[in-house]
Amino acid sequence: MADMEHAIRVQENNVLGTLKLLWIIKDVVPESSLIKLGTLGEYGTPLTGRPLFEGLFPADATIEWDERKWSLGGETTPRDPASFYHVSKVQDTFNILEACKYWWLRSYDIMQGVIFGVYTEELELDKRLRTRFDIDEWFGTVINRFVAQAVIGIPLTLYGKGEQIRGFIALDDAMQCMIRLIISPPEPGQYDVVNQISGLHKLGELAEYVAKVGNEKVGLDIKIQRLENPRVEADSHPFEVVSKKLPRVFGFTPTIKLEEEIERMFKILLEPEIKSRIEMKRHTIMPVTTWQGEKREMRKLEKYDPGTKEYKGYKPIFDT
Amino acid sequence: MADMEHAIRVQENNVLGTLKLLWIIKDVVPESSLIKLGTLGEYGTPLTGRPLFEGLFPADATIEWDERKWSLGGETTPRDPASFYHVSKVQDTFNILEACKYWWLRSYDIMQGVIFGVYTEELELDKRLRTRFDIDEWFGTVINRFVAQAVIGIPLTLYGKGEQIRGFIALDDAMQCMIRLIISPPEPGQYDVVNQISGLHKLGELAEYVAKVGNEKVGLDIKIQRLENPRVEADSHPFEVVSKKLPRVFGFTPTIKLEEEIERMFKILLEPEIKSRIEMKRHTIMPVTTWQGEKREMRKLEKYDPGTKEYKGYKPIFDT
Repeated sequence: MADMEHAIRVQENNVLGTLKLLWIIKDVVPESSLIKLGTLGEYGTPLTGRPLFEGLFPADATIEWDERKWSLGGETTPRDPASFYHVSKVQDTFNILEACKYWWLRSYDIMQGVIFGVYTEELELDKRLRTRFDIDEWFGTVINRFVAQAVIGIPLTLYGKGEQIRGFIALDDAMQCMIRLIISPPEPGQYDVVNQISGLHKLGELAEYVAKVGNEKVGLDIKIQRLENPRVEADSHPFEVVSKKLPRVFGFTPTIKLEEEIERMFKILLEPEIKSRIEMKRHTIMPVTTWQGEKREMRKLEKYDPGTKEYKGYKPIFDT
Repeated sequence: MADMEHAIRVQENNVLGTLKLLWIIKDVVPESSLIKLGTLGEYGTPLTGRPLFEGLFPADATIEWDERKWSLGGETTPRDPASFYHVSKVQDTFNILEACKYWWLRSYDIMQGVIFGVYTEELELDKRLRTRFDIDEWFGTVINRFVAQAVIGIPLTLYGKGEQIRGFIALDDAMQCMIRLIISPPEPGQYDVVNQISGLHKLGELAEYVAKVGNEKVGLDIKIQRLENPRVEADSHPFEVVSKKLPRVFGFTPTIKLEEEIERMFKILLEPEIKSRIEMKRHTIMPVTTWQGEKREMRKLEKYDPGTKEYKGYKPIFDT
């Protein structure tokens, strides 16, 4: 949503790139499997509280209308992408779905939750594997941004009410899922979708976790700052996500605990070299672009100490 | 589906073109309305017989799952596009939907049925307005192709069983619909979808109509030829389409009768100048590309005289 050039470039890269890849797979290696990274953000947050299924309606879902009833099983679920980036992922979904149908290609399309953490066993072994760590308003993901903000003394920023609920998964658990998908490839012609998350969290509560770990274990003095929401999104909404296939079919068990991963992040991000890299990017942290297209600072709504506020609103529901 | 270059070019043109247009509307003329041409082919043909709603689920549609029930009203309906061209139209749908949400643009997205005929009042007035008339396997639409085939003595080609059902609308009626949409523009932020058709027909029955008019009124000797289906599609399927908004909200009443329009087409296409233009394109009429990507002639299945065969299978259901 940054500007027209970025919106066009992301769709050109993602959509035309995936389409070209599909033709190449068909022509050169039709027996290979495409493991595609999509995002839970394809689905939006339906205000009815309808569960977010795994890409396609489950076999036992039915629709009723006009006093008649039909199965919805196997049909694509409604999409309501959160930005033009997320639109590009929806656009990919349909190219892949069709390529599997026309050409009997095979693909798992991963609707991934928000990634957090910087830990995998391999990354521990060699510091040269530490590549990018995004903390800006566009690419930065929320938990990683919170820890980076805490490390350089910026209050943790919540947008609007801060009651947005999202699905999350630690980097190492996401790697585990992908390995499990790779070693159990789809059948020819099979297009299947998995929701790849290990839990659901309300953003305001995540800010509390990060502040608690930072204050108690690292000795920081972290505040929380609510800002005007730059995005067009519900900031208080029901959220129920189905994520049954990875644990039940592919044997995925999450191994990373949220607070342990936050503590591990603090240790790494507080290393002087990393901290100074974050300092250099300090100016990219506060959001300056509204989803409506304005470039300006967001209004500050409320600043408070962690532990002084109770997050109410909806409780997330996680079907595994 | 012709080849990689065409698939990429159609998505580049349609998707990036529409995205650029949306940004320009936002920046320059945000109060204008976008009347967008999509296609009924975005929906596919659900084998459950579930109705094809108008882009978004109607307010009184509900989903039942896990012994619970939710409204689906307003959510995007499942999409199952019939080719990469149709995928590009689905991809447009989501860019437009989101632009209306973020920027309060306004749009009617028309899911148009298959166009037939070459008549409008304006086209009658000046022959210079006769521009392209597509009869090839890609751009040619079925009724127009049938009449063109009949005019140059090729049997009318049906793919597979020939029991595919599609929604149709005559060119002049489509123009009437668009004018009605233009004079009743959407509200700011409103994204709405209309299914723009005047009737549903089975392709095998359309071949009979064209043959009957051509044989009885024009004195031709038309045969029907079933071919191996080059496409990946059901050739016998239920089909129920909802198209209530145009007649009920916008006052659309179809004025063109199918057999009259076919007769009018015969008159025009038999004009020596037009007939010779069709003769020049004779080599483009028979399909030579399978949806799986092969380039070859299709197997001939059965050739028969019109009136000797009864088309059974599903009856179309048209909700107006």
